[in-house]
Amino acid sequence: MARRIVVIGGVAAGPKAAARARRLDPAAEITVVERDAHASYGACGFPYYVGGGVARIEELMETPSGVVRDPRFFEQVKDVRLLTRTEAVEIRRDHREVMVRSLDTGEARTLPYDRLILATGARATGPPIRGLDAPNVFRLKTYSDARRFRAALDQIADLLKERDLAGDEKARPLRVAVIGAGLIGLETAEALQERGEEVTVVERLPRVLPNADPEIAAHLEKHARSKGIRVLTGVGVREVVVEDGRAVGLRLPGETIPADLVLVATGVRPEVDLARAAGLEIGPTGAIRVDEHLRTSDPGIYAAGDCAEKRHLVTGRPCWIPLGSTANKEGRVAGTNAVLGDVETFPGVVGSLVMRFFELTTARTGLGEAEAREAGFAPVVAVVAGPDKPHFMPGAAPILVKMIADRGSRRVLGVQAVGRGDVARRVDAAGAAVTAGMTVDQVANLDLVYAPPYSPPMDPLLVAANAVRNKLDGRARGVRPDELRRWQGEGVAPLLVDVRSPAEHEALPFGNATLIPLGQLRRRAEDLPRERPLVLLCKIGLRGYEGQRILNGLGFENASYLEGGVVGWPYEAPDR
Amino acid sequence: MARRIVVIGGVAAGPKAAARARRLDPAAEITVVERDAHASYGACGFPYYVGGGVARIEELMETPSGVVRDPRFFEQVKDVRLLTRTEAVEIRRDHREVMVRSLDTGEARTLPYDRLILATGARATGPPIRGLDAPNVFRLKTYSDARRFRAALDQIADLLKERDLAGDEKARPLRVAVIGAGLIGLETAEALQERGEEVTVVERLPRVLPNADPEIAAHLEKHARSKGIRVLTGVGVREVVVEDGRAVGLRLPGETIPADLVLVATGVRPEVDLARAAGLEIGPTGAIRVDEHLRTSDPGIYAAGDCAEKRHLVTGRPCWIPLGSTANKEGRVAGTNAVLGDVETFPGVVGSLVMRFFELTTARTGLGEAEAREAGFAPVVAVVAGPDKPHFMPGAAPILVKMIADRGSRRVLGVQAVGRGDVARRVDAAGAAVTAGMTVDQVANLDLVYAPPYSPPMDPLLVAANAVRNKLDGRARGVRPDELRRWQGEGVAPLLVDVRSPAEHEALPFGNATLIPLGQLRRRAEDLPRERPLVLLCKIGLRGYEGQRILNGLGFENASYLEGGVVGWPYEAPDR
Repeated sequence: MARRIVVIGGVAAGPKAAARARRLDPAAEITVVERDAHASYGACGFPYYVGGGVARIEELMETPSGVVRDPRFFEQVKDVRLLTRTEAVEIRRDHREVMVRSLDTGEARTLPYDRLILATGARATGPPIRGLDAPNVFRLKTYSDARRFRAALDQIADLLKERDLAGDEKARPLRVAVIGAGLIGLETAEALQERGEEVTVVERLPRVLPNADPEIAAHLEKHARSKGIRVLTGVGVREVVVEDGRAVGLRLPGETIPADLVLVATGVRPEVDLARAAGLEIGPTGAIRVDEHLRTSDPGIYAAGDCAEKRHLVTGRPCWIPLGSTANKEGRVAGTNAVLGDVETFPGVVGSLVMRFFELTTARTGLGEAEAREAGFAPVVAVVAGPDKPHFMPGAAPILVKMIADRGSRRVLGVQAVGRGDVARRVDAAGAAVTAGMTVDQVANLDLVYAPPYSPPMDPLLVAANAVRNKLDGRARGVRPDELRRWQGEGVAPLLVDVRSPAEHEALPFGNATLIPLGQLRRRAEDLPRERPLVLLCKIGLRGYEGQRILNGLGFENASYLEGGVVGWPYEAPDR
Repeated sequence: MARRIVVIGGVAAGPKAAARARRLDPAAEITVVERDAHASYGACGFPYYVGGGVARIEELMETPSGVVRDPRFFEQVKDVRLLTRTEAVEIRRDHREVMVRSLDTGEARTLPYDRLILATGARATGPPIRGLDAPNVFRLKTYSDARRFRAALDQIADLLKERDLAGDEKARPLRVAVIGAGLIGLETAEALQERGEEVTVVERLPRVLPNADPEIAAHLEKHARSKGIRVLTGVGVREVVVEDGRAVGLRLPGETIPADLVLVATGVRPEVDLARAAGLEIGPTGAIRVDEHLRTSDPGIYAAGDCAEKRHLVTGRPCWIPLGSTANKEGRVAGTNAVLGDVETFPGVVGSLVMRFFELTTARTGLGEAEAREAGFAPVVAVVAGPDKPHFMPGAAPILVKMIADRGSRRVLGVQAVGRGDVARRVDAAGAAVTAGMTVDQVANLDLVYAPPYSPPMDPLLVAANAVRNKLDGRARGVRPDELRRWQGEGVAPLLVDVRSPAEHEALPFGNATLIPLGQLRRRAEDLPRERPLVLLCKIGLRGYEGQRILNGLGFENASYLEGGVVGWPYEAPDR
């Protein structure tokens, strides 16, 4: 008798598992159940659809050759039965069957299985406030969400134009309030701003992009403001103000901001109701506990994608990082194991992420600095700035790289980066290195590709590793922007010494720094105080560090340098 | 007494070693000796200077903040004595001194050292033919070479323009013949073609870019031709034809091609004369043998950069891969060890390379297929094609990824890639994985960064790893372009089955392939022969593989698929 495989969930992990199972077992009966009217779409593309960069939403559901992945496609090409608008209601583990119900007809039926794969994904979470059910309050989780949101944007924009033409109201941009400044919130804020809307982002936490370290995220916040986006951090929304049944604004602690539309992007949590009701074990992160074969606590049931817990390869602990890339990998593993038995493993993740934000890219892998500390490591951190290619190449652009290593083992725990240049490449190389458990010494000597259109001869990733080594070895004494700010807050008043050229000093002043070009430092050092902390600064941190070493050589024990230099400074202006 | 460090060679490794030594020892006396009039320049930027993308050659010698690294800069900023136009004549190891001579005054002097660092680099090699000494025959190795070559290009272009204006001769592009189709030859050919010159590249070997695998290099060759560059492979130059003391063409076996200028780019070899004369051990590659601390056979002498042998981290054997990136890393290690004793190691390289060629990028890391075989591995290889981002994202571009793994250990030995899309990122992640000795199974589950502006949810690198796994596990039966051509040469006549859509089949036909869209394959399979080899083809290889699995499921043992699909096909047109 043919093996019966039932997959609950029709996006990312689910279809991937079904397709893989089919390739391994031509005879299996494979059924995918999906609640939405559509399946197998690229949900990560929603912000680009909303912004108009992706013209038709159907593109997100097409194969690279332009075929829509609808039930007919699944049947003809994949030989997989796809039931859309169908909800899985109950898993009867003792009978090995799933009860499902059509959302159109209400008709219930029973799907018996030999192997069940849960790919129920995640659901959007919202703040516990009133007004979220108004019709012009949106989320961006499902296909239907995305279509509704863009339709509403287009409709209200048209309405405003009509009113302008009718002389009722002067044309103005649409006011969109985004609640939440995480990945989706920022990506969508960019998309809306590029459409010409007036965007306000409200974040409860004290900073944007909570999954990046503060000094990286601060660059995005500065950039968002430079683009005209209003960013309010550390501000909790009290309620969505509703008039005549429609949201008209957000009430915040100090003010009420008007809004024609509200997008709620406050995050997601794993969708585990069905699994929990069936008595499957839920892990400490709230996602379905799985073993390395992606088997749940019931050996006949696998879980893959956003509903499943993952193992963090740096801490060894359970984590939950929902991503389409991970979901696809897990789908393949679950599909394989459902057919062949538990032959494949999914080792885990290192928390790699990337985001485009206007001209900037930001990316991370491994642990952040605070995460490293929480996990029991003793982090040693360096931040370096530099051009992503030799400065003489057209298109060379600065990037900022932060590396976090463990003092004892010298192991690289994480890397984060931001900038206009090629950030993703450095972070992907670092991600492989972190996965392999490499030390800073090994990363510093990685054989990365090199040619002027791509990299300077010393790649910024390697420079970051060397900066960490210099710190570990007690040679480099770096001060990071947030440390310098903290010093100032604590009443420590370092003397800032600008070792750039007079022209650079003039062109981009930095507080009230004293100018001593690096070439003059040796002979003018005697004018510097030996007790007061000295912070040497330059464009990217390199000359500052050289200056520190020169002063050390002259017996100054009070010299340090500003890591990342002026390029790496993410705040408006230093106090002194 | 201050430690005396002498560095021979003022480009890349040399200045890096000197600067590092200075940061570690403020009191050392550090001297750098350089034969050329200039030092510390970015030699890899020469092709971009020749092409005009880099306007002034001085830019190659400037710091990112625009300061020229001349002897004065070295003295004031680095506290390093730089002697240009100075040749090291002899190393007297027993006295620990180097005899040098000024190329301007002829004056000789003795530089005593405690530690000597050899950074003598590489020298251009030429074919053993006549005419190479004509004044309009150029190389592109040194600063002076680059300046002379560009000046000549500009001068002759001006001359041609003048003649046109005077009515003597109609304006025509400059004819430049490039001998050698390696990295420098191709980069310069592009630069010249972009200037509007008429470029012919002559390569003795049967294909361009000998350090890439044939099926990757073939894409570059096709691209070069599409850009109007004449590419002659498998053609050895008999002589440079010289008239009135100037080169006027190249005599080839069958023809003589005219040339206003000739560039010789036939490669380099390590510059070891001084080391050899001093009795230092030379390794099997012809470069100076060094240990992991970069110490030569004399413990007081280090060697770094292009003159030094390296260890290949995949084979464990000595190799010689001259690169500015490696030179900088080695310079740092040598500079450190010269000061602190042998505390640092340079582990070796994995042969990572990247090249831009018009819109294409090609990159490699690890071993090529033939190299893997020569090194005693049993290579299993897969080639995949795919968009570098989701197809719905603007700017998505195809890339081709070839992965080479070892059958027994499943270890990834090498990765090569080519395409308009982001190739470098995938190869750098692969380079770290190869360095770490990861298996295909580990690479397939690498946590690479993912967001639609950067990657599809299943990154092409991971798809390549899965393709290798499918082959290792006996499920995928791929045929690569060169295999298909070989089959045809051997008289095997497979039936080509195009599983794309009718529209794709029409738009980009592939030989005389029979059209059976994938969705119809199950029901039309009975029409296919069961004895004759079947090769299923599609756009990128994915549907072809699915088709192979469908046919396998129906009992066809004769089905395989074209790896990389039509996108990956690098030749003009298939025979059948």
